[in-house]
Amino acid sequence: MKSYREELWFETKTRRAYLNITPQVEAAVKKSGVTEGMVLVNAMHITASVYINDDESGLLQDYDRFLEQLAPQAAAYRHNETGEDNGDAHIKRQLMGREVVVAITEGRLDFGPWEQIFYGEFDGRRRKRVLVKVIGE
Amino acid sequence: MKSYREELWFETKTRRAYLNITPQVEAAVKKSGVTEGMVLVNAMHITASVYINDDESGLLQDYDRFLEQLAPQAAAYRHNETGEDNGDAHIKRQLMGREVVVAITEGRLDFGPWEQIFYGEFDGRRRKRVLVKVIGE
Amino acid sequence: MKSYREELWFETKTRRAYLNITPQVEAAVKKSGVTEGMVLVNAMHITASVYINDDESGLLQDYDRFLEQLAPQAAAYRHNETGEDNGDAHIKRQLMGREVVVAITEGRLDFGPWEQIFYGEFDGRRRKRVLVKVIGE
Repeated sequence: MKSYREELWFETKTRRAYLNITPQVEAAVKKSGVTEGMVLVNAMHITASVYINDDESGLLQDYDRFLEQLAPQAAAYRHNETGEDNGDAHIKRQLMGREVVVAITEGRLDFGPWEQIFYGEFDGRRRKRVLVKVIGE
Repeated sequence: MKSYREELWFETKTRRAYLNITPQVEAAVKKSGVTEGMVLVNAMHITASVYINDDESGLLQDYDRFLEQLAPQAAAYRHNETGEDNGDAHIKRQLMGREVVVAITEGRLDFGPWEQIFYGEFDGRRRKRVLVKVIGE
Repeated sequence: MKSYREELWFETKTRRAYLNITPQVEAAVKKSGVTEGMVLVNAMHITASVYINDDESGLLQDYDRFLEQLAPQAAAYRHNETGEDNGDAHIKRQLMGREVVVAITEGRLDFGPWEQIFYGEFDGRRRKRVLVKVIGE
């Protein structure tokens, strides 16, 4: 069994951002040399998500509005009594998910026609990481 | 390491539907010959989910009502300005999840007493796919 | 390829509870002898979650309040017409997720600085299980 590990680093200019990271994950899979297996892609921070959906700007606005309506940044959170201001981000991340697992078939991400991997940032403007871990043969 | 790949195809008669696909996944695991490992089951489309929960008709109605309340089909979505009408489906799918990973132990899905794998369709009435990828030995 | 399987058992005193199970998962990974691979940790019951986030008491209260607002225990659920009283728990579990997959690197959980694995119980006061399945080499 082969395995491969890589970290992707991001620093968004805005508090919330949605970045298509499919090319970076594809490159990591290629470097791994794995042709049949699985790749795990997960946020290493607990106020960010990795998820799979469409790269369409209207949709990204819909997600952002939906998440902000359900867990507004300005609402009261017990977590913020610790001095943090990101209680909303911990909830938004749970709704969008921490990780995706993608099949690798014949050396490539085994995707349907519109699947793209996104990094969802909910408390940005600082350096944060995504882990890419490949296993297979 | 062994690996095995299979696609399951669905075309629901209704826009939204919840299908128990456990028998198909079990059959794929059996065909794979893997006795210890993991199986990834994911929607290949971005307006559908694969999730695990109970096969109880009242619960399926509860899920449907809950999702429609949070992201109503008839609400305004920026995504729909592209000509699509499925902005709600992209949100519903995120809430229910894209994929499940299930342990394979002694050649079988390693499940608790009530776990069943469902395909959740939120924009149906056309042919769509689920990927089953098995790795292990 | 190596594989290892272990069940963790819980019986919470309250209907809803959030337990940090990171030490138990770490111990299982160590027992597995796997140094490079992945570990799947999933609830074996369909009214409980396994998720990764911060071990901060205010945040746990925020999650609990958020979930109870979206899917109140006392609301009407079709599922409860079967004689059950846990329709809310099936929805809460979907929002927080069934499972996590964590990379194993150099024999350890490959985590960012604040990642902790939690068991989220939404219908407790009885014995329930979590599955830990390790694969790798």
